[in-house]
Amino acid sequence: MALYVQKFGGTSVGSVERIKAVANKVKRFRDEGHQVVVVVSAMSGETNRLIELAEQINDEPTPREMDMLVSTGEQVTISLLAMALHRLGVPATSYTGAQVGIQTDSAYTKARIQRIDTEDLRADLDDGQVVVAAGFQGADDEGNITTLGRGGSDTTGVALAAALGADECQIYTDVDGVYTTDPRVCSRAQRLETITVEEMLELASLGSKVLQIRAVEFAGKYNVPLRVLSSFEDGPGTLIVAESDQEEDSMEEPLISGIAFTDKEAKLTLLNTPDVPGVASRILGPIADANIEVDMIVQNVAPVGDYTDFTFTVAKSDYKQTMQILKDQVLPDLGSGELRGDDNIAKVSLVGVGMRSHAGVASRMFRVLADENVNIRMVSTSEIKISVVIDEKHMELAVRALHTAFGLDKQDIEPE
Amino acid sequence: MALYVQKFGGTSVGSVERIKAVANKVKRFRDEGHQVVVVVSAMSGETNRLIELAEQINDEPTPREMDMLVSTGEQVTISLLAMALHRLGVPATSYTGAQVGIQTDSAYTKARIQRIDTEDLRADLDDGQVVVAAGFQGADDEGNITTLGRGGSDTTGVALAAALGADECQIYTDVDGVYTTDPRVCSRAQRLETITVEEMLELASLGSKVLQIRAVEFAGKYNVPLRVLSSFEDGPGTLIVAESDQEEDSMEEPLISGIAFTDKEAKLTLLNTPDVPGVASRILGPIADANIEVDMIVQNVAPVGDYTDFTFTVAKSDYKQTMQILKDQVLPDLGSGELRGDDNIAKVSLVGVGMRSHAGVASRMFRVLADENVNIRMVSTSEIKISVVIDEKHMELAVRALHTAFGLDKQDIEPE
Repeated sequence: MALYVQKFGGTSVGSVERIKAVANKVKRFRDEGHQVVVVVSAMSGETNRLIELAEQINDEPTPREMDMLVSTGEQVTISLLAMALHRLGVPATSYTGAQVGIQTDSAYTKARIQRIDTEDLRADLDDGQVVVAAGFQGADDEGNITTLGRGGSDTTGVALAAALGADECQIYTDVDGVYTTDPRVCSRAQRLETITVEEMLELASLGSKVLQIRAVEFAGKYNVPLRVLSSFEDGPGTLIVAESDQEEDSMEEPLISGIAFTDKEAKLTLLNTPDVPGVASRILGPIADANIEVDMIVQNVAPVGDYTDFTFTVAKSDYKQTMQILKDQVLPDLGSGELRGDDNIAKVSLVGVGMRSHAGVASRMFRVLADENVNIRMVSTSEIKISVVIDEKHMELAVRALHTAFGLDKQDIEPE
Repeated sequence: MALYVQKFGGTSVGSVERIKAVANKVKRFRDEGHQVVVVVSAMSGETNRLIELAEQINDEPTPREMDMLVSTGEQVTISLLAMALHRLGVPATSYTGAQVGIQTDSAYTKARIQRIDTEDLRADLDDGQVVVAAGFQGADDEGNITTLGRGGSDTTGVALAAALGADECQIYTDVDGVYTTDPRVCSRAQRLETITVEEMLELASLGSKVLQIRAVEFAGKYNVPLRVLSSFEDGPGTLIVAESDQEEDSMEEPLISGIAFTDKEAKLTLLNTPDVPGVASRILGPIADANIEVDMIVQNVAPVGDYTDFTFTVAKSDYKQTMQILKDQVLPDLGSGELRGDDNIAKVSLVGVGMRSHAGVASRMFRVLADENVNIRMVSTSEIKISVVIDEKHMELAVRALHTAFGLDKQDIEPE
């Protein structure tokens, strides 16, 4: 007998039929003798419907009232799923986030879980009940309803799994696992059997949005085995494990686990800025003040004199505003420098814990791109990731070439 | 400064525009220096939408899950109304039934209020907040969400007013008060300035469905001044008062306060049944067992011998089933008797605390009906009510004639 926490997102419970399908899936696990806690999101479309209602009334609703409003979305789903389970003869009880014991701080719309009281929950499970819990929500010390922010249902699932010491937290989505890269771009992309938490974090933050980053961090921190799998077809999905666990399983870990990419960023460069202490903060300070998030940052010494070139990327949607800030505030402040910008770029990243122990990944990457005549505009590396910025038009070509070159292709039988 | 509890039903909050209108109304009271607790129902149509979802999943949903589901309806309204108040610069906080301290028993879908913890509520009011509370719902001792049954928002309003010692509980509806009779049937019907709790109870149970009976009982029991008034137009509405209060106000109380009527009942008669102890329960027992509610009951001694005639009314929708039960079970059990039925009847009732101290109301009623050639099929009386059953086709004629004869007509300047 195992204890599973199973999380189903908005698409998976998006209609009466799908809720019935989820009930059937849960019943199968229970028929095999397992204990099950189900965490569900609002039916797809419902949260947006509620937000639109609010917007018609007040264009700046208070966060507390927004949480009061949108938390009804999951409450509808939990009751409907419990009813669907009852219809199949499965004893089940629904609980809101507050009722299931999820205590958060009072940061409405982006609350953080502080504590989970599992006593009642355990009593229900021992009593043979399936527990159906509302994802995405909790309550603060005073009983005010809070939400964890969009996508927070994943976090609820992992947090409940951690608190209960569950054998596995299963996140059901509309994809059947984590892929080496996006199959829509590279037809030879393949599903990974396992991936480490760290790799998953790099892939998620780079654009392979299968799981909420926070949930993965949480799973890593509390050592919760996390599995991503499809709501709509059976299959093993992808198991996300702590790195230590993986090393036991596979002696020969792959060099690269996946390739992430995005064309949603733009690049800005300040040429010939004075190379004096504090210049980076004088450039990025005004941008942070405007609540613009900066992703990659690269600083190079200029060929001659005490000057430097400073390059960074922002979301494409922030490009124009960032350019304006640099022009109006930063350049006058620095007193010198030249401004360049490019929003026709793409970022391609290789991710893999294996590269830590293998030299030469970067040089191999650059060679592959050179062979394809892809110019590299910018490079940035971390321990388990190499990212390059290239021209947007080369993105798909680069992803496919790298996918093949690093042995990620489906049915690839060449040894690494 | 007064403390008002204001309850707005589903129609009054049925759209974004109407919610904004409610916020404006609440603001007006607050601008005059009053404290306000607002109780709201689900937006009209929302509860039915949720019930339909449930029915698509399970045709016998458990009451607990139904309450979990439908209670989201009011939760949406409270947050939207709080947002609308904020937009007008009015500080307001929304609370679910559980949060506002409404403790009930665990009789899901028809829970009864057991206790109201007003401490937090008072703190909010003293802090200058408008409290926006979800009607119709509460929580049991274990924190399970319960509902008070349909229309229970009125009860929430009165219960909160009682617990807080409010100066007035105002029930906003789509009518502008309680009328002497239904204006659609009698164009000379007029709005009553005041009516006693007892009269209101008789009128409500007889078909003038302005207020939930339970709320009126509650108001009577806890001596809460209750006012019915229109959401859509300004006006004094009708004040429902304890009888003692009214007697102080008006020495010359009217003989009759209102005329109720319904054509939704059917009449069944057992002629020549044995007149022995226990016969009534032998007739009505099987009917009660089938969950059929009996309204009027009249028993007459038959002209000769130890026989009696037994007549009662049920809802028209229960007529056929009741007839079948009498035929299949009751007649064989009694061993004798003859069965008659009529579903083309109407019941017309005069209601007024004044009739207690005035003889002759009944005879005057009968004379008026006789003058109009209306045959009386059945009579039943209580301390403040006389009901007659007549042919359905005479209902409107009877109501109008009685309305005039008992001095209820608008612009009637004849002394009583």
